[in-house]
Amino acid sequence: MKRTLFWFAAVSLLVFPQCVPAAEVKVSDATQACIECHSVIHPGIVQDWQKSRHSRVTPGQAMAVKGLGLKVSSTDVAEELQGSVVGCAECHTLRPKEHADTFEHNGYDIHIVVSPGDCRTCHAQEAQQYTRNIMSHAYKNLAGNKLYQDLEHTILGGIQRRDGKVAIQPASAATKAEACYYCHGTRLKVSGTETRNTSLAGELKFPKIDGWPNQGVGRVNLDGTLGSCAACHTRHQFSIEMARKPYTCKECHVGPDVPVNKVYEASKHGNIFSSHNKDWEFKTVPWVIGKDFTAPTCAACHVSLVVNTEGEVVAERTHQMNDRLPWRMFGLVYAHPHPIEPDTTLIRNKNGQPLPTDLEGGFASTYLIGKAEMDKRRQALQAVCLNCHGRAWVNGQWARFENTIRETNAKTLTATQIMTDIWAAGLASGLRQNASPFDEAIERRWADIWLIYANTIRFSSAMGGGGDYGVFADGRYELNKAVMEMQDWLALRRRVLPEKKP
Amino acid sequence: MKRTLFWFAAVSLLVFPQCVPAAEVKVSDATQACIECHSVIHPGIVQDWQKSRHSRVTPGQAMAVKGLGLKVSSTDVAEELQGSVVGCAECHTLRPKEHADTFEHNGYDIHIVVSPGDCRTCHAQEAQQYTRNIMSHAYKNLAGNKLYQDLEHTILGGIQRRDGKVAIQPASAATKAEACYYCHGTRLKVSGTETRNTSLAGELKFPKIDGWPNQGVGRVNLDGTLGSCAACHTRHQFSIEMARKPYTCKECHVGPDVPVNKVYEASKHGNIFSSHNKDWEFKTVPWVIGKDFTAPTCAACHVSLVVNTEGEVVAERTHQMNDRLPWRMFGLVYAHPHPIEPDTTLIRNKNGQPLPTDLEGGFASTYLIGKAEMDKRRQALQAVCLNCHGRAWVNGQWARFENTIRETNAKTLTATQIMTDIWAAGLASGLRQNASPFDEAIERRWADIWLIYANTIRFSSAMGGGGDYGVFADGRYELNKAVMEMQDWLALRRRVLPEKKP
Amino acid sequence: MKRTLFWFAAVSLLVFPQCVPAAEVKVSDATQACIECHSVIHPGIVQDWQKSRHSRVTPGQAMAVKGLGLKVSSTDVAEELQGSVVGCAECHTLRPKEHADTFEHNGYDIHIVVSPGDCRTCHAQEAQQYTRNIMSHAYKNLAGNKLYQDLEHTILGGIQRRDGKVAIQPASAATKAEACYYCHGTRLKVSGTETRNTSLAGELKFPKIDGWPNQGVGRVNLDGTLGSCAACHTRHQFSIEMARKPYTCKECHVGPDVPVNKVYEASKHGNIFSSHNKDWEFKTVPWVIGKDFTAPTCAACHVSLVVNTEGEVVAERTHQMNDRLPWRMFGLVYAHPHPIEPDTTLIRNKNGQPLPTDLEGGFASTYLIGKAEMDKRRQALQAVCLNCHGRAWVNGQWARFENTIRETNAKTLTATQIMTDIWAAGLASGLRQNASPFDEAIERRWADIWLIYANTIRFSSAMGGGGDYGVFADGRYELNKAVMEMQDWLALRRRVLPEKKP
Repeated sequence: MKRTLFWFAAVSLLVFPQCVPAAEVKVSDATQACIECHSVIHPGIVQDWQKSRHSRVTPGQAMAVKGLGLKVSSTDVAEELQGSVVGCAECHTLRPKEHADTFEHNGYDIHIVVSPGDCRTCHAQEAQQYTRNIMSHAYKNLAGNKLYQDLEHTILGGIQRRDGKVAIQPASAATKAEACYYCHGTRLKVSGTETRNTSLAGELKFPKIDGWPNQGVGRVNLDGTLGSCAACHTRHQFSIEMARKPYTCKECHVGPDVPVNKVYEASKHGNIFSSHNKDWEFKTVPWVIGKDFTAPTCAACHVSLVVNTEGEVVAERTHQMNDRLPWRMFGLVYAHPHPIEPDTTLIRNKNGQPLPTDLEGGFASTYLIGKAEMDKRRQALQAVCLNCHGRAWVNGQWARFENTIRETNAKTLTATQIMTDIWAAGLASGLRQNASPFDEAIERRWADIWLIYANTIRFSSAMGGGGDYGVFADGRYELNKAVMEMQDWLALRRRVLPEKKP
Repeated sequence: MKRTLFWFAAVSLLVFPQCVPAAEVKVSDATQACIECHSVIHPGIVQDWQKSRHSRVTPGQAMAVKGLGLKVSSTDVAEELQGSVVGCAECHTLRPKEHADTFEHNGYDIHIVVSPGDCRTCHAQEAQQYTRNIMSHAYKNLAGNKLYQDLEHTILGGIQRRDGKVAIQPASAATKAEACYYCHGTRLKVSGTETRNTSLAGELKFPKIDGWPNQGVGRVNLDGTLGSCAACHTRHQFSIEMARKPYTCKECHVGPDVPVNKVYEASKHGNIFSSHNKDWEFKTVPWVIGKDFTAPTCAACHVSLVVNTEGEVVAERTHQMNDRLPWRMFGLVYAHPHPIEPDTTLIRNKNGQPLPTDLEGGFASTYLIGKAEMDKRRQALQAVCLNCHGRAWVNGQWARFENTIRETNAKTLTATQIMTDIWAAGLASGLRQNASPFDEAIERRWADIWLIYANTIRFSSAMGGGGDYGVFADGRYELNKAVMEMQDWLALRRRVLPEKKP
Repeated sequence: MKRTLFWFAAVSLLVFPQCVPAAEVKVSDATQACIECHSVIHPGIVQDWQKSRHSRVTPGQAMAVKGLGLKVSSTDVAEELQGSVVGCAECHTLRPKEHADTFEHNGYDIHIVVSPGDCRTCHAQEAQQYTRNIMSHAYKNLAGNKLYQDLEHTILGGIQRRDGKVAIQPASAATKAEACYYCHGTRLKVSGTETRNTSLAGELKFPKIDGWPNQGVGRVNLDGTLGSCAACHTRHQFSIEMARKPYTCKECHVGPDVPVNKVYEASKHGNIFSSHNKDWEFKTVPWVIGKDFTAPTCAACHVSLVVNTEGEVVAERTHQMNDRLPWRMFGLVYAHPHPIEPDTTLIRNKNGQPLPTDLEGGFASTYLIGKAEMDKRRQALQAVCLNCHGRAWVNGQWARFENTIRETNAKTLTATQIMTDIWAAGLASGLRQNASPFDEAIERRWADIWLIYANTIRFSSAMGGGGDYGVFADGRYELNKAVMEMQDWLALRRRVLPEKKP
């Protein structure tokens, strides 16, 4: 019998290595109270959490880990939190006075929206790094930039006809929340309370939250902190496996403005991932190159703590995410060195516009990292490459990538020159007082070039030429075609329309 | 030795839980006769069937299941069918007189095309529900609608030059069958017989079937029934796992007119599916939320019998598929409440056109479900959401979705007003007697707006803002751009062309 | 104890069937020397190789395999190679005098770029077949064709403004290498040596290689051979599983010019693959239809040695890859029978242009396979289909496919007639001496038709109507729209511009 049990356990561990005996789990009374109702009314959440590491390991146990496997970076976790697993109450009752959505709920002070301010209780280092991540400012970086607001307005806004012309109307909050701010994050605000009749407890009061639901990377939370850890560490399993797989990044980086996932999937690395990831180990910390995985995912290059087979650190864990990135490939309107500060609303180009480059392609250098920092970041990224590729390979790849930055910036300049001619000829109104440079058809064709095609080419280059994205799929074929179309548009009008001044 | 066998069985069941000992299988003599030849000439089919549940369980055994696990909904399966597994002969010799393609084949009356009329022998309830599914009428709903036929003609038709103009030619049956009707289903027709020399049995006669092969959802079968169960339950494994995975729906719903799969893959739900589905259980009936799966696939929201961890029914199984859907998001040319009848050729808008909306955006309400039914369907769908999301979350998501219905309908109206102006100015011929509103370049740009961009935005909204599809990827960026282009096209012609009347 | 070990081994083999005891491995001294340093500085490569079959099986063992399972097709592998596994030194020191990049490295004559000339040592038959594969000539077929060079120039070239016009500048080598030649392959050339400071061995000299890195299918190697086996058999695991999965082909065939993978993923076959491939066996040789896999991947139809469940050969292994393909679907500018020779620069159409068709759609038949060879290839491909589909199904599918070849060629002709009219009217300069037919907006719209839309429709047809690619997604909807736009473009200019001569 004993032997039978032994074999059952051995086989189980081979087949389900993630299972930990339930007997060891210590759930707090408060969490037990939550589960009693919510396992009936929200079984999906509760079941998901039960599959999580949070449901099986206490902070105290996690803090006892020595060396690189340590996941709880805080050293000052409150004594009373260390002894229970991280359940509902552990997060949803933390720091009640700091959350504007705290409400009395069956004897507990609950808040609905858990924030990085809560997660930092155990994960201080990651939360701190994330404040330096440009993503954490994604709300303000968009909503607080006059020029970007104009572009957003012409994209999201309603479009009506007046006197035979089209006029853009402001987009509703609902539209914004599910469009740009789905990824950027909404600004949450408690706008009152509402009483709802619940099946288990009769009438209950709940706070009403504008901008909810949202899990955007730059969400402005009800405790004033920025971001949502659940953007990547999906509630309520918070699985490191999921954060390390490229599907998570795909939620926001699928394109065509940032077609990272498409390019990755078609790249050699993506091919290896797709074919072999079923045999990889996604849960070990640190993550061992070659042993746990044989090609990088997004996380391997940009986030994770990766080590070589000797256990030496190849790259430190970072939630800043751009500290291995010298260039910001996204064209605004040209690719440029990364901004120094995550709050990009501070940036002014030489013309006083809130842009990291000017319309002629010059960099707003005061606000962007310099050569030394760029070198440091390049080396940090290449350290990962060099574990599988020789120096000549990596240098060759990098030289092509930086050539592509220059090439696509030069093409963007050509397109911008044509656009400027069109404005100067009064054929579009972008230069006029109070006019938008984004609300006419030809202006939008210009935007395609720097917002879609140039970005696509750069991402294709960065990921080793992934698939057709450097050529036909929103790549060079389309970019050159769009420039030809702008030229064609202008040439026809020059021939058939009387000249007018802007 | 006995212990060794026990362990072998135990380990096997852990590793291959789907295996059932071959000894229990009772194959009919007729099926055995089929297999003798066809396992040699079509081993792929036979092997695939051998992996199926049909090959291992008899209807009698399946009917004995009590409770929600019951898969055979018919209570009157003929005695002689109950004792053998469901093999070749069980389906391909059913109801021989009702199938126009029945032919004598080595002593058996075989028909080639198995239809829902056959499947209903065991699965009566599902077949009955499917007759109420708008998909089952997909052939006639397209082929029997004069306006849709005009659109189809301008899409599929050959395009030739005559007197310096382009003229659309009728598409061939072969083109139609592999284009629109690949998904909608073809109309099958026996057009004669042919004799073929076979490797195992010499010369044999077979029926010739026009429109074959096809597995479209609205196929008009040779017994008069509509649809093909194999559209989703792929022959010959008929795997419930496959029908529950989103790849099945992707076959027809990949876009860009109905980009459901693209949006799903980029959504939070799709991310969870992609990352974790390897650990899910896709074969259990009923399907347990949280335990068997931790994020919905298409089937979970729209088709499957799902229960909570207490075993309580959250949603009943349905093959009508739209009884959890108040809105039909697909623009014709506006989004609208679902039609009451699956046969949509009955619908007339206020102008007498066979459309669920008129060109000004009004609903053909007589033919569409009313508020009470919409409420009922909304609640049926939200019952699934509420197992993982709180009421505030679900309400917030839903309010955004219905806002998006209104927003995209309003934008479609603006585009239609410009199109109407163009027609009125005689710059396109859509208003003229016998002229198509779909066969000129500017008319096609108008169609992009309601057929591609508006639909994309709505699907993105419905699935929680999935990825970039609400903004850049055929979303609001493209929709507004297209309206600007229509305006630009009209403005230029107004300036340089003499006015003419339509 | 013995029983326990037995069970441990049995369970391990069930769970990790790919593991072979390490004790049997015989690594050469030279490879051992490589590994000593490189396992520290390039652990990813070494670990990847350790997962490979090359690291566990010697050529001698592989050559001893009888029958269809034989993977080493060479019968004359040198005695000294037969006894060790295939490690670093076995490939990177082969034929040192023939590789221009051979250099002295810690006492060994190493070359960096392993070529088909090396792989043929063991895999002679596959290397020989590959020389007949049009892919092996992909570099020259593009770089050595004057017309294609013109198209490439207008796609990749820089685009500048001069005197109010746009002018295309030659693309840099770096741009070419990561764009067209990423897939086609670069021409490698040793351009000198460089000294690098290495962490383990101080200063070392290395050859500098222009065009490196690259793994394109037609790479021109430093030993004069063509291609890179690593394009599909990714270094350094060289996994047959990976080559058989569609992700490998996707690297180059993702579209939109050759949207094979997109169509496949949305097809019935792709659906079956996506849903069930986790249960398939990708490593067995030969590959058994129905048993190892239940739907074809790219390799099953075009490359692999596939057998039926009786062990009879259904299709021989081929690395020519087009010997099961009568038609070349890719429009240049029309679809046509496959070229006889893999070097397509030899082809001349009736007008002396290096194209397999002329502008009126006629085939350059002297250079293309004839009816007999087309029949043979059709039969070779259909032999695979017929293992899962009846003859009527396969014939119906094929008739539709060949109808689509004719249909899309006819539509391309219509578009070309409009383009010719535009040239003749002097509205574009493609007919003028030294003018490019690809560098104006309207010419590019014409190119969309035969380079993107017609190809998409054909691939959709070939793979059984996969998804929406035959209709909305770059399919017939877009093709007809583009023809309408060309007509619209011409009509406007005819009305408002004075006529001029080309």
